[in-house]
Amino acid sequence: MAGKITPSMMCAPLDKIGCYVKAFEENQVEYLHIDVMDGQFVPNLMLGTAYISSLRKITSIPLDIHLMIVNPESKLDWFDIQPGEYVSIHYESTPHVQRALQTIKSKGGKTMVALNPGTPIEVLRYLLPDLDGVLLMTVNPGFAGQKLIPQGLDKIRDTRKFLDDMGYPQIEIEVDGNVSWENIPKMAAAGTDLYVAGTSSLFNDKVPVEESVKRFRSLI
Amino acid sequence: MAGKITPSMMCAPLDKIGCYVKAFEENQVEYLHIDVMDGQFVPNLMLGTAYISSLRKITSIPLDIHLMIVNPESKLDWFDIQPGEYVSIHYESTPHVQRALQTIKSKGGKTMVALNPGTPIEVLRYLLPDLDGVLLMTVNPGFAGQKLIPQGLDKIRDTRKFLDDMGYPQIEIEVDGNVSWENIPKMAAAGTDLYVAGTSSLFNDKVPVEESVKRFRSLI
Amino acid sequence: MAGKITPSMMCAPLDKIGCYVKAFEENQVEYLHIDVMDGQFVPNLMLGTAYISSLRKITSIPLDIHLMIVNPESKLDWFDIQPGEYVSIHYESTPHVQRALQTIKSKGGKTMVALNPGTPIEVLRYLLPDLDGVLLMTVNPGFAGQKLIPQGLDKIRDTRKFLDDMGYPQIEIEVDGNVSWENIPKMAAAGTDLYVAGTSSLFNDKVPVEESVKRFRSLI
Amino acid sequence: MAGKITPSMMCAPLDKIGCYVKAFEENQVEYLHIDVMDGQFVPNLMLGTAYISSLRKITSIPLDIHLMIVNPESKLDWFDIQPGEYVSIHYESTPHVQRALQTIKSKGGKTMVALNPGTPIEVLRYLLPDLDGVLLMTVNPGFAGQKLIPQGLDKIRDTRKFLDDMGYPQIEIEVDGNVSWENIPKMAAAGTDLYVAGTSSLFNDKVPVEESVKRFRSLI
Amino acid sequence: MAGKITPSMMCAPLDKIGCYVKAFEENQVEYLHIDVMDGQFVPNLMLGTAYISSLRKITSIPLDIHLMIVNPESKLDWFDIQPGEYVSIHYESTPHVQRALQTIKSKGGKTMVALNPGTPIEVLRYLLPDLDGVLLMTVNPGFAGQKLIPQGLDKIRDTRKFLDDMGYPQIEIEVDGNVSWENIPKMAAAGTDLYVAGTSSLFNDKVPVEESVKRFRSLI
Amino acid sequence: MAGKITPSMMCAPLDKIGCYVKAFEENQVEYLHIDVMDGQFVPNLMLGTAYISSLRKITSIPLDIHLMIVNPESKLDWFDIQPGEYVSIHYESTPHVQRALQTIKSKGGKTMVALNPGTPIEVLRYLLPDLDGVLLMTVNPGFAGQKLIPQGLDKIRDTRKFLDDMGYPQIEIEVDGNVSWENIPKMAAAGTDLYVAGTSSLFNDKVPVEESVKRFRSLI
Repeated sequence: MAGKITPSMMCAPLDKIGCYVKAFEENQVEYLHIDVMDGQFVPNLMLGTAYISSLRKITSIPLDIHLMIVNPESKLDWFDIQPGEYVSIHYESTPHVQRALQTIKSKGGKTMVALNPGTPIEVLRYLLPDLDGVLLMTVNPGFAGQKLIPQGLDKIRDTRKFLDDMGYPQIEIEVDGNVSWENIPKMAAAGTDLYVAGTSSLFNDKVPVEESVKRFRSLI
Repeated sequence: MAGKITPSMMCAPLDKIGCYVKAFEENQVEYLHIDVMDGQFVPNLMLGTAYISSLRKITSIPLDIHLMIVNPESKLDWFDIQPGEYVSIHYESTPHVQRALQTIKSKGGKTMVALNPGTPIEVLRYLLPDLDGVLLMTVNPGFAGQKLIPQGLDKIRDTRKFLDDMGYPQIEIEVDGNVSWENIPKMAAAGTDLYVAGTSSLFNDKVPVEESVKRFRSLI
Repeated sequence: MAGKITPSMMCAPLDKIGCYVKAFEENQVEYLHIDVMDGQFVPNLMLGTAYISSLRKITSIPLDIHLMIVNPESKLDWFDIQPGEYVSIHYESTPHVQRALQTIKSKGGKTMVALNPGTPIEVLRYLLPDLDGVLLMTVNPGFAGQKLIPQGLDKIRDTRKFLDDMGYPQIEIEVDGNVSWENIPKMAAAGTDLYVAGTSSLFNDKVPVEESVKRFRSLI
Repeated sequence: MAGKITPSMMCAPLDKIGCYVKAFEENQVEYLHIDVMDGQFVPNLMLGTAYISSLRKITSIPLDIHLMIVNPESKLDWFDIQPGEYVSIHYESTPHVQRALQTIKSKGGKTMVALNPGTPIEVLRYLLPDLDGVLLMTVNPGFAGQKLIPQGLDKIRDTRKFLDDMGYPQIEIEVDGNVSWENIPKMAAAGTDLYVAGTSSLFNDKVPVEESVKRFRSLI
Repeated sequence: MAGKITPSMMCAPLDKIGCYVKAFEENQVEYLHIDVMDGQFVPNLMLGTAYISSLRKITSIPLDIHLMIVNPESKLDWFDIQPGEYVSIHYESTPHVQRALQTIKSKGGKTMVALNPGTPIEVLRYLLPDLDGVLLMTVNPGFAGQKLIPQGLDKIRDTRKFLDDMGYPQIEIEVDGNVSWENIPKMAAAGTDLYVAGTSSLFNDKVPVEESVKRFRSLI
Repeated sequence: MAGKITPSMMCAPLDKIGCYVKAFEENQVEYLHIDVMDGQFVPNLMLGTAYISSLRKITSIPLDIHLMIVNPESKLDWFDIQPGEYVSIHYESTPHVQRALQTIKSKGGKTMVALNPGTPIEVLRYLLPDLDGVLLMTVNPGFAGQKLIPQGLDKIRDTRKFLDDMGYPQIEIEVDGNVSWENIPKMAAAGTDLYVAGTSSLFNDKVPVEESVKRFRSLI
C-alpha cells in the first residue's frame, strides 16, 4: 500500500493558500493537515474554527485535523467534523479518550489518537476497536522546524508490529515531525502510512508543488 | 477626531485575504483586528501565531491583536509584537494586568485593556497611566454575529467620561460587537474611537470594500 | 411587599423529602433552594442533576438553583432549566457573567447573580438590565451551620439602595447564610426579599413545618 | 464465589429512596453504589456529601462510593468514610493514586481503583498490594443509559487474569455500565464480582425489587 | 506613629541568615517578610513551609508571610500560623478572600489583603471589619529588583484616605516593591506603615545592618 | 559501582546550612538534593529559586534538583540549571516529558524522570535515550518522615532489570523516601545508585556528619 500525503497547512503563507490548495488537488494529495493549538496543551496557539470552515469552502480534499488542545472531547462540536475527515486527539490531553473517539465516529469522522514522543504505545490497547489511525509525533508538538527524535523510528516499527499482532492491520500510522527528504525513506521503511509534509518537503518556494509531490511519492 | 476602522480578519475568507488586505490598504484602513481565541478564556479557538506572522508579511497596516486567552502575560512572546501594533488583553483573563501592559509597552506595542460586557470600568483606575486604549465588548467574546447588548452604549459613554475626568482624554475607546450600519452612529455618539468592523459592515460580498469604507467613514 | 421563603433542600433528610415537599406546598412556600457545589468553586460537593430532575417530578414549587460551580456558563444545559425557576451564578466563578445570564433568560429562567461576602456590589452595575435578583451570601458558601458575617447586614442595605438608585427597584435580594429566628427580622429590615431557610428555622424535627412557616412569615 | 449487587442510587427517585433501601435490605443487597460527579472530571455533577451522610442514617448496607472527581486524594475527608465502605477513585483523576488509597485504608475503607474504558490495566501493577477492588467502566463515566463498549468484556477477562497471575486472586472486580439482563451473564463469565445495577435491571417501576434481585442472583 | 520595618528574607544569603536575623533582633526590626511563591499565581517559586518553620526556631521576631499562591484559603494549614504573625493573601488569588481572613484570624494571625498594582481598592469595602492590614504592591509580584510603578504612590494615598473615611484608621498599610532610600520618604509621606525592605536598603554587604536600620528609621 | 549520597537539604536547619554544606564537602558527598514543591503537584510548598541560587554560591557540590511542580517544561528557565546538575521532573506532572528532558540536556544538566509510587515503569520506554537517571519515590512526594511503601523495593529491582534489558545499564536509579539505616541495605541490594538522605540518616543532631556518612557508605 502506497503512503499518503497530508501537507501541514500552517506552513502555507496566507496569500498563497488558494494556490497551494489548487496544486494539492491537481496532484491528488490525500489530506490537508490542520494543526490546532490552544496555548494550553502546547506552548503555541494557532489555526482553529475560522480557518477550518473557510478552508472547507475552497477545497474538497478531506481535512486531517490534529487537535493539540486540552479536553478535546468537550470541544469537538466547535469543529463541525465532516464525514471522511481525520480528527486526531492526544492521549495525554484527556482522561476521556474513548469518549472523544466515539464522538468523532458518531459525526462520520475517522478517528486517530496522537501520542507525544514519550508516551508508550501500550495506552492504545483498549482503544483499538475504535481507531482508524495512530498519529506518532516524532518531534514535540507545538512548532515547525524541529529535528527528528531518533527513537521515533523505533516507535513507528513497534507500533506497526503492535497493531498487526493485535489484529488491526488496517489501522493507519501517521507521522508528524521533521518529515524531510532524508527522513521520509526511513519513516516509510518503519511502516508509515500518512506523512505530514511541511517546510522540509512540500512548502518550498523554489520547487513547484508538482515536482515535490512526485519526489515525495517516489520515496514512500 | 475622526474614528478609525479595524476590520475583523476572522471574517475574511482564506482565499480572499490578499484581496481584502489590498483593498484595506488602498482605503487607508487604520488597523487589522485579529481575534485570538484559546478555547479556554472563550468557548472558541481561532487565529494565532501562524496567521499573524503570515499576515504581517503581506501588509504594512499595523495589527490590532485582541487576545482572548488565559494568562496572556506569559504568552506575549509568542506573538512577536511589532512597534505600533495594538495588543489588547482582557482584564478578566489574569491577575497580572499591569505586568502584561508593561511587557507590551516594552516591545513597542500600544496597550489596551479589554472588558467583557459585565465588567465594571472602575477596574481601569490604576491602569490608566499604562493605557493607550480600552476595548469595550458590546457582545460576549467568542463568536461573530451576535446582537448588541443594550447597556453597552451607556458603558461607552461612562468610560469616555471616566477617562476624561481622570485626565486621560488621549486614551482611545475601541468597540467590538455588532458594529452594524445601524449601530455605528450610536457608538460614535457615545464616544467610540476605533470600530471593529465585521460581517455586518465591511465584509460583504456584494458591496465593494471602497464603498463600504466610505459609508463607514461618513458615519463616524 | 412580603418576603418569600426558599427552603434549602440540602437540609432535608433523604427519607423525608417527600413529607417536607408536601408541607412546603401546603404552606405556599415560594421556592425550593438547591445548593449545587462542585468541590472546585467551594470545598464541598453536593446535589446536582439527578437530585434536581427527580425533585421536579414530585413538586410544582419552582426551584431556586444556586450554582456554586466554576464556569457555570458552560454547564447550564446540564440542569434543564424550567420557566419560572431562579438560577443564580456566582460573579466570582466566571469572567462571562453576562453570557451566563443571557443563557438562563433564553431558557425562561429567572436570573440571579450571587456574591461572596467580600465581593463589592459595584460589579453589578452593567448587569442590572439582565437581572431578576441578587443573592447575597452572609456566610461563606460551602457549608450549613455557620455564623452570620456582621457586615452582611450593611451589604443588604447598600445593595437595596444601589438597586433603587440605579432604577431597578424590581430586582429582588435573596439572602443565604444563618437565616435564623434571631437574624430574620434584621435581614427583613435591611431589605431582603427571599430568605434561604435552613436548619436554624424550617428544618426542625420538633416543630411542624406549618408552625415554622407561620412564624417565619410573621417576621418578614 | 457468588457475585454481589450494588444498586446505583442515582437511579432511585427522591421520593422512593426509603422504599428502595428497605427492599434492598430485605433482599440482602451487598452495597449501595453512589456516583459522585464534580462536573470537572466528568461532564455531569451529582450526589455528594449531603446525600451520603443522609443515606447512612437510614440504612446499614455499606456504601460503595464511586468518586468521579478531580484530585480525590485531597477531598477524601469530605466524605467521612466509614469502615467497610468501598471507595473508588479514578486512576486518571490524580497523579497521587497510591496516596489516595493509603488514606482510604487509614479510615477503614476498602480501596478500589476505577479505570475508564481506554485506560490500560498495566497501571495497576504497583498498586496491587493496596487494592481491595478494581472498578472497570464499560461505558464512559458521566451518564446512565449508555451502551456497553464491546472491548469491555475482554478487559474484564484480562484484568481477572492479570490479578490472578500477579498473585492477587482476592482483589474484586466491579463492573459499571450497561449492566443489563442481557449483559450480566457475559460479565459474570468474564469474571465480574460486583455489579453496578441501574435502570436496566433493578430500578424498574413495574417489577418488584424482590423479583429483580432474584433474577439478578440467578444470573451471577 | 512611626513606621515599621519588615526585611524581605528572600534577599538574605543562605549562609548569612543567622547573622542577619541576629542583627535584626538587636535593632528591633518589627517583622520578617517571607515571600511565598508557587509558580502559579506568580511566575517564580520560592520559600515555603520548610523555610518558615526553620526560621521560627531561630528568632522571636514575628513573621510577615506574604502568600503569592493560588487558593490560599485551602493551604493556610500548611503554614502553621503563629499568634501575632501577619499573613497576607492576594485578593486576585481566590474568590474566597473573606473565608481566608476568617481562618487566619481563627489561628491568631493578623490578617492582610495584598493588592496587585492594577487592582482597585474598592474591593476592600466589605472586608474592612476583618482586616488588620493592606499590602500594596508597588511592583508586580514575583521578582526583586524592579522599578516603582509611579501610580503606586497615589494608590497609597487613596487607600489611606479610604480606610480613614470608612472608619478604619487602625488598619495598617504595608508597601512592597522598590522600597529604596529614594522612595522611602515618598512612601512615608503617602501613608505607609510597614516597609518591605530588600536589596535596595537593608541587604547590603558593605553597610552594617545597624547603620541601615538607623537610616531607614530616620526616613519613616 | 559504589552508591552515591544526595542529602535532602530541606532537612537542614536554616542556621546550620553552612555547617552541613561544609561537612558534606569534606566527606565527598556527591550531590545536594533540593525538593522543590509548588503546592499544586504536591500538597506542600517549599524551596525554589532563591534557595537554589544562594546555595550554589556557597558550595561546589552539584545540585540534584527534584521538581515536584506542574508543567515543569515551562519553568525550567527559572532554575538556571548548571552543567553537571541533576534535574528530575515527574512523569505525572506534564504531557511533555521528552520536551522537558531535551531542555534540561540543552542546558548541560543531567536528566532524570521521577515516578510516583503507583506509576508503572513502562512509561520510561521511549524516554530511555534521553535519560541519565530514574528517580523512584518510595513514599508519596510532599513530606519527610513517611514509611517505606513495601512494593517500592520490587519496583527498584524491576526498574534495574528493565533498564539493563533495554540496553541502558548506565542509567542511574535514585531512591527517595524513608532511606533509613534499616532500609538502605535493602535498597542497595535492589539496585539503587543514588540515595536521598534525610532525617533518618544524615541529619541527626547527635551524630557528626562524618560518622553518618561513613556508616552510610559502609552500607551501600
